[in-house]
Amino acid sequence: MAHISHSRRLRKTPFTPGVEAAGVKAYTVYNRMLLPTVFEDVEFDYHHLKSHVQVWDVSVERQVELNGPDASRLMQMLTPRDLRKMQSDQCYYVPIVDDKGKMLNDPVAIKLCDTRWWISIADSDLLFWVKGLAIGAGLNVEVFEPDVSPLAVQGPKSDALMERVFGSDVHDIRFFRHKRLAFADTSFIVARSGYSKQGGYEIYVEDGRYGMAIWDALFNAGEDLNVRAGCPNLIERIEGGLLSYGNDMTMENTPLECGLGKFCKHAEGLDHIGQEALTLEAAQAPERQIRAISIQGSAVSPARTAWPLQVDGETVGSVSSAAWSPDFNTNVAIGMVRMSHSNEGTELTVETPDGPRLATVHENFWI
Amino acid sequence: MAHISHSRRLRKTPFTPGVEAAGVKAYTVYNRMLLPTVFEDVEFDYHHLKSHVQVWDVSVERQVELNGPDASRLMQMLTPRDLRKMQSDQCYYVPIVDDKGKMLNDPVAIKLCDTRWWISIADSDLLFWVKGLAIGAGLNVEVFEPDVSPLAVQGPKSDALMERVFGSDVHDIRFFRHKRLAFADTSFIVARSGYSKQGGYEIYVEDGRYGMAIWDALFNAGEDLNVRAGCPNLIERIEGGLLSYGNDMTMENTPLECGLGKFCKHAEGLDHIGQEALTLEAAQAPERQIRAISIQGSAVSPARTAWPLQVDGETVGSVSSAAWSPDFNTNVAIGMVRMSHSNEGTELTVETPDGPRLATVHENFWI
Repeated sequence: MAHISHSRRLRKTPFTPGVEAAGVKAYTVYNRMLLPTVFEDVEFDYHHLKSHVQVWDVSVERQVELNGPDASRLMQMLTPRDLRKMQSDQCYYVPIVDDKGKMLNDPVAIKLCDTRWWISIADSDLLFWVKGLAIGAGLNVEVFEPDVSPLAVQGPKSDALMERVFGSDVHDIRFFRHKRLAFADTSFIVARSGYSKQGGYEIYVEDGRYGMAIWDALFNAGEDLNVRAGCPNLIERIEGGLLSYGNDMTMENTPLECGLGKFCKHAEGLDHIGQEALTLEAAQAPERQIRAISIQGSAVSPARTAWPLQVDGETVGSVSSAAWSPDFNTNVAIGMVRMSHSNEGTELTVETPDGPRLATVHENFWI
Repeated sequence: MAHISHSRRLRKTPFTPGVEAAGVKAYTVYNRMLLPTVFEDVEFDYHHLKSHVQVWDVSVERQVELNGPDASRLMQMLTPRDLRKMQSDQCYYVPIVDDKGKMLNDPVAIKLCDTRWWISIADSDLLFWVKGLAIGAGLNVEVFEPDVSPLAVQGPKSDALMERVFGSDVHDIRFFRHKRLAFADTSFIVARSGYSKQGGYEIYVEDGRYGMAIWDALFNAGEDLNVRAGCPNLIERIEGGLLSYGNDMTMENTPLECGLGKFCKHAEGLDHIGQEALTLEAAQAPERQIRAISIQGSAVSPARTAWPLQVDGETVGSVSSAAWSPDFNTNVAIGMVRMSHSNEGTELTVETPDGPRLATVHENFWI
């Protein structure tokens, strides 16, 4: 297993001192920033996440701020999802597509007010796309990366831990809503959201100088809750069907292929990039579809490339993420398959680096 | 030292099988793709690069293709460098700036013809910026990432090795010019260029399926030249003053601060993004400047953050890259300092993670 070479270019985060003191064992790089992937080991981290509460350094979810009179107009240009009824305390998962309807990112948009938005991004320089569009189209809006680093609190005991640090106001935050809550001599936007199915919050830490203060406050308050440093967990996110941009979908895919059709419904009067391409695709139905896939046999290694899914030697799809699930006693995976092979129970062969395995298509993830 | 977690998102390259068979020990991630950083060790790799010939997987220099009637117009919008006299076999180093004159990337532009360009990018999703601008401004040009992966051949014996694989035509290629040369049943654009000061070429391998064929051809032809797998070398690139986007300059910097003023000369009739901001800055002179810095004492560790440069407790700059140079018997570094402290011989204190060290500013790198 190769090491990672550190440099300024692979940015540290405001929480890196805490992450390294907690004994991080491996990193990935996400938006040119360090994202922890393993603390104890992936299975230990998984069981702990499902039983207790974890604090995750997800600073890599960099924010793109849209600020100015044309902010809402630009935000709607970016996505097929209808934002017109969105309120100033809401978060929306928004597919971002190009002029051909291909996925550029799948972020969460946070509406702060009509003239100010944050986009909490997946792994691509969405800042460049949004700035390029704004300048090319001559819009009156500033587009930049603010000093905001999300810290996630995830797991069944996250409500208890958050109440101890932010007070009982946290309970009033509904799913995918946010509220500004006091901390020390400042305040942070806190949303009920996060990249797990175990429940929890994301704290949008403004001003990196507060990073270790909020990190330490959470650990000090949560000792008897068995709080640990954690990170998005490969097994848990596959079980829950949480897609990863760059892994399970790329610029080669449309939102309809990714099961995101519900965010792309045609609405009268909406004007966004890629509208024509998506309308055409919706009329014809997409060629392929994201599916849950189970893989028989012993634990597979993580997928470093897309593994071909075949039937009678013909490739009909691929697996993009895979892991052994202790709770479901099978390898769980995410893949994309031709519509003709997407029904529940379809049996295929997956070509893993260790040889072919039997794979079964499922219409639902393990939730 | 933490490991790197592999996934499909951190893309392998057409040469990864060769790189891993050669025993790569560490990777960085660059443009969401794996870039080797160490084979034997950084010092061994350095001495070998300066004495023999190395083959480098620099697929991470992804290409952005501009193709269509407005390609040349769009290319000129992107950069302050005057491209009007550029010929169809030339490569130009081009600063790319935003509307505020801040650096977004420092790629090499390769002109294939008036309606077709490649931009061989540093570490940021320039594709998103260029596509966004083109769509925002309604230009008639396709912008995409083609299946092209550069393979560099670097070192004093690179001419000899390249002649054996491509014939004596390679000698006719002048510095920063390119030529299409035959290989097997195809042909590749070959340029005299590369991210070292040891001389060499970059082969723009079109169609990843040829990756291992050209890799193997170079190794088979170069056995008696002591050819080895290599990679951009931290020590050698600092000695040579080769800047790294994300390390030595970021979106916080202007090209004038980075010593790239010669590519930003005002020219009548030129129309590019950031023109107004750069003209204003040129009239006032930039506030700070990239400089070579030597650091006294034993070998420093690689810089994971910018290390403050101070005088009498006041910060007047920072060091962004540093390494021990065996050939110059000192720590060599790249930093940015206030103009008031940029003269040859200025003595400063650098705050390294291991404590303060004496640092000296130099007007020239170690070449």
